[in-house]
Amino acid sequence: MSQHIVVIGAVALGPKAACRFKRLKPDSKVTMVDQSDLISYGGCGIPYFVSGDVSDASQLQSTSFHMVRDAKFFHNVKDIDVLTNTRALSIDRNNKTVRVRKVLDQQEENLSYDQLVLATGSRPKQLPIPGTDLKGVVSVSNLNEAIAIKQGLANGEVEKAVVIGAGAIGLEMAEALADLWGIETTVIEVADQILPGIVSPNMAHMAQRHLEENDITVRLGEMVQQLEGTDRVKKVTTNKGVIDADMVIIAVGVAPNGELAKAAGLEVSAHGAIVVNERMQTSDPHIFAGGDCVVVPHLLTGKPGYFPSGSLANRQGRVIGTNLAGGNAKFEGAVGTFIIKVFEISLASAGISLKTARAEGWDALSVFVSQFDRAHFYPEKDLMYMELIVDRKTEKVLGVQGLGSMTDAVFARVNAVAAILKYSPTTADISNLEVLYAPPFSAAMDIVNALGNTAENVLRGKNKLIDVDQFAEWWQNRDGSDTVFLDCRGWGNAKPFAEKYPDDWKSIPQDELKTRMDEVPRDKPLVLICNTGVRSYEAQLNLRQKGITNTYNLQGGMATVKKWGFDLL
Amino acid sequence: MSQHIVVIGAVALGPKAACRFKRLKPDSKVTMVDQSDLISYGGCGIPYFVSGDVSDASQLQSTSFHMVRDAKFFHNVKDIDVLTNTRALSIDRNNKTVRVRKVLDQQEENLSYDQLVLATGSRPKQLPIPGTDLKGVVSVSNLNEAIAIKQGLANGEVEKAVVIGAGAIGLEMAEALADLWGIETTVIEVADQILPGIVSPNMAHMAQRHLEENDITVRLGEMVQQLEGTDRVKKVTTNKGVIDADMVIIAVGVAPNGELAKAAGLEVSAHGAIVVNERMQTSDPHIFAGGDCVVVPHLLTGKPGYFPSGSLANRQGRVIGTNLAGGNAKFEGAVGTFIIKVFEISLASAGISLKTARAEGWDALSVFVSQFDRAHFYPEKDLMYMELIVDRKTEKVLGVQGLGSMTDAVFARVNAVAAILKYSPTTADISNLEVLYAPPFSAAMDIVNALGNTAENVLRGKNKLIDVDQFAEWWQNRDGSDTVFLDCRGWGNAKPFAEKYPDDWKSIPQDELKTRMDEVPRDKPLVLICNTGVRSYEAQLNLRQKGITNTYNLQGGMATVKKWGFDLL
Repeated sequence: MSQHIVVIGAVALGPKAACRFKRLKPDSKVTMVDQSDLISYGGCGIPYFVSGDVSDASQLQSTSFHMVRDAKFFHNVKDIDVLTNTRALSIDRNNKTVRVRKVLDQQEENLSYDQLVLATGSRPKQLPIPGTDLKGVVSVSNLNEAIAIKQGLANGEVEKAVVIGAGAIGLEMAEALADLWGIETTVIEVADQILPGIVSPNMAHMAQRHLEENDITVRLGEMVQQLEGTDRVKKVTTNKGVIDADMVIIAVGVAPNGELAKAAGLEVSAHGAIVVNERMQTSDPHIFAGGDCVVVPHLLTGKPGYFPSGSLANRQGRVIGTNLAGGNAKFEGAVGTFIIKVFEISLASAGISLKTARAEGWDALSVFVSQFDRAHFYPEKDLMYMELIVDRKTEKVLGVQGLGSMTDAVFARVNAVAAILKYSPTTADISNLEVLYAPPFSAAMDIVNALGNTAENVLRGKNKLIDVDQFAEWWQNRDGSDTVFLDCRGWGNAKPFAEKYPDDWKSIPQDELKTRMDEVPRDKPLVLICNTGVRSYEAQLNLRQKGITNTYNLQGGMATVKKWGFDLL
Repeated sequence: MSQHIVVIGAVALGPKAACRFKRLKPDSKVTMVDQSDLISYGGCGIPYFVSGDVSDASQLQSTSFHMVRDAKFFHNVKDIDVLTNTRALSIDRNNKTVRVRKVLDQQEENLSYDQLVLATGSRPKQLPIPGTDLKGVVSVSNLNEAIAIKQGLANGEVEKAVVIGAGAIGLEMAEALADLWGIETTVIEVADQILPGIVSPNMAHMAQRHLEENDITVRLGEMVQQLEGTDRVKKVTTNKGVIDADMVIIAVGVAPNGELAKAAGLEVSAHGAIVVNERMQTSDPHIFAGGDCVVVPHLLTGKPGYFPSGSLANRQGRVIGTNLAGGNAKFEGAVGTFIIKVFEISLASAGISLKTARAEGWDALSVFVSQFDRAHFYPEKDLMYMELIVDRKTEKVLGVQGLGSMTDAVFARVNAVAAILKYSPTTADISNLEVLYAPPFSAAMDIVNALGNTAENVLRGKNKLIDVDQFAEWWQNRDGSDTVFLDCRGWGNAKPFAEKYPDDWKSIPQDELKTRMDEVPRDKPLVLICNTGVRSYEAQLNLRQKGITNTYNLQGGMATVKKWGFDLL
């Protein structure tokens, strides 16, 4: 039976659902409606367009075979009608019609549907402060705006930029401005770390350090109070000072466009996202919704999760397309995944952070491991850093994070753990995760497996850890304490520290510990230090055997201290 | 209670089990026995040592912090005694002793044990042909042999080499010889593809093509009959000809060293590997075994699986160490994973191949997808190629393979699927696999997800495929058939083919198909062709709508034909 499907929103999910449906039901009719003239573009590519990596906006709107996905393309190639510059005003569910208005001439009409798809997406959150309407104050909400930003950059209108918000889009935009355009860029974040809620403070600190090495100023715990200027923005005033800026990018997160659904009486969540079942149906079975405007189950917390992502949108779009055609495809939810390029490093996460885990009621801990991303004897390799978040009671794995170079090494490990998170793995499953092995790609005992092993050792009380920020605090307060910092590396590595801090920094290489046990202070807290945390763990066990138990293994070791940007010399 | 643990074999699993046990039970005594003087080296690194990527053999024997893992290291750092040059002759299970003989002076003694670990590993399979005892005929069984090979190469003794066996070690050694040393290298394989039993014929063909581009000669379906020479090898005679060679590397697989266990009455498998339970215990609960000498459950077939791998050995070693100390760690088995660097490409697999799946009784099919490894608009990207093996009846995923550039892109995707294989995923789980997404790392609809989607379309009868070798056969036999090859790409791409083969190759771009439907031959088999298989699938659906169903979509498209090395122009 031929049907008419109306799709509201023609970016990511909308086109995916429409095309999938048409492939299954070629005799049916599909109409897509979008308030913009630019449709079906890769919104996630906007920072790379602004940076110049992607030279032309049409590339974001093209297929992999270089056809521009405009209304004509959809008509000719996909047999789908697109009404651009057309805004959906309301849904009449009883009569199964959508009221739309042409943006250009304000003409209105009703579109009848048999089934409706809401692909209304999200919008940038606004800041409730004065000055956001000044020229030069932008968000990165759509491709038209991005084109205007890039034009301004090309015209030399911008020397100093402020990015408000250190989430993914904020950081990607900061890199885009600073890297190619050489703009003096400051990122202001109200939280006490970059990427709050996504990665741990330690991972954030390492990434922040890398931003700073690339001439981006990062200001944390700072709240923007107003933007000032006459016509164009000139200054950003915060609770801590004033920063000159001729461009301000507001990137403080996105909010779901659920208003149309809510007004039509569909169920929406507390924060306004559309509620759908696992077939991506709203509370009206003739209306489907997906992408940035919906909540789906968070597979770790079991609660509704909001995951604005082009990737989920595409996969959900296919599910909707199948179900519009009478199929029974399911989207069961998400564990939450994240990856970002920050200049020369990659930073990724899957599942939930330690902070979130504790807020959700788990008795959670995290362990941190640094190790080479390939066999340590293989010539081309980099250190990488991973963190595992685990529930003490069940030993269930709740999340994983990784930071490393711009190979796909971090992507590969976090991907593998992300893939199994929905199956409720324990630390033992991580210890035995079957990572593909050959020396150019991985280690025989890969960093992922080491992460599982470390978590198990900590859970069993074998490995007593401190992390790098605790280490930094103890180091800075060492004058008021009797803590001894015991370097378990070879003398060559330990020497500069031991010589500079003879009262605090002691060197006993782990392989000499057995014979030099009498040099170890028995009555003081000992911080055990090596390059990555492996030898210091071994030293901790050696000391415990001799009854010395007041020891703390610095997890991630000096490699992490260095990456963290804490310079003791 | 202090115990004495004896470990037979001091490479990979042995040291891992010994060290883990000592960390848990520092007061117990451990003795490791090895017939060689070189112990605890990374055997998987041998090809990279021979190639020169790893400059010095001691690097393979060193920790990541540059300590050489020799007997002295184990004594001083790990409190483990190692008897090198010591061969285990027999096990007296009643008296719990191991009879050992010093290789150098033939002295024998008995070692008492409380618990015993068999880490006897594997040996290269021998060829039952004359001449294998000639000088210059080697396997790559241990580090001493590798050092001798490299010395011979450095002395200029080798101009032409033959590698017998196109498995992982054979190919890695062929690359090592040809790449740095510039040796004229021929690989001879008795099967009709390289990497038989590991990857599909198509993947193998693409990798073979790349070997040939790098000046390695590959001879398939050829059986070596004898090696000839007076003192040193000079010729290799096969059932198809004679090849000059002054070095022959025999790499026809490995066999488990299970004899010691068998002689002691322990249970061994049909092919001589030691049988262990999930705690890695042999049929004698006081004796553990792991690594290349054991079988563990194959998690896809449920049968005993033989997985010689440094990675499994390390993970199993840790399980044994834990259990020696009274723990209850488990190694549940493996799905089988593989990755190899072949010059500038990486090739990986997990699970079982189509051929194996059918041999095991599944009604299996495979689908093949080519797609960029990152967002198609991101400037740095490469095409990659993946195959998914699926059971038709249950839609269960049985295996996955990938081929791409030497980024970790292939590693990342196959790792993720490998990780979930033990959870019995279906194609829907692959369609919805939560791959981390950002344009520098992946596509919004990533190739892995596309692989799941394609499999589903094929299973539902929506997508009727042929693969590249079928295409090649039909193309070569086109004069005797009425098959039409319909190019669905733009005219620019199709033109050279359509002009060269006006009778056979027809061009109708997919976006023009609707209006040019009357040009399509309705009574002939149509092979539908585009660059990657996406537009040709769309064309297949367009044609089906018009009642034209005798069509075959070339999976992987012209990108795959090109990578396959089939040049039509």
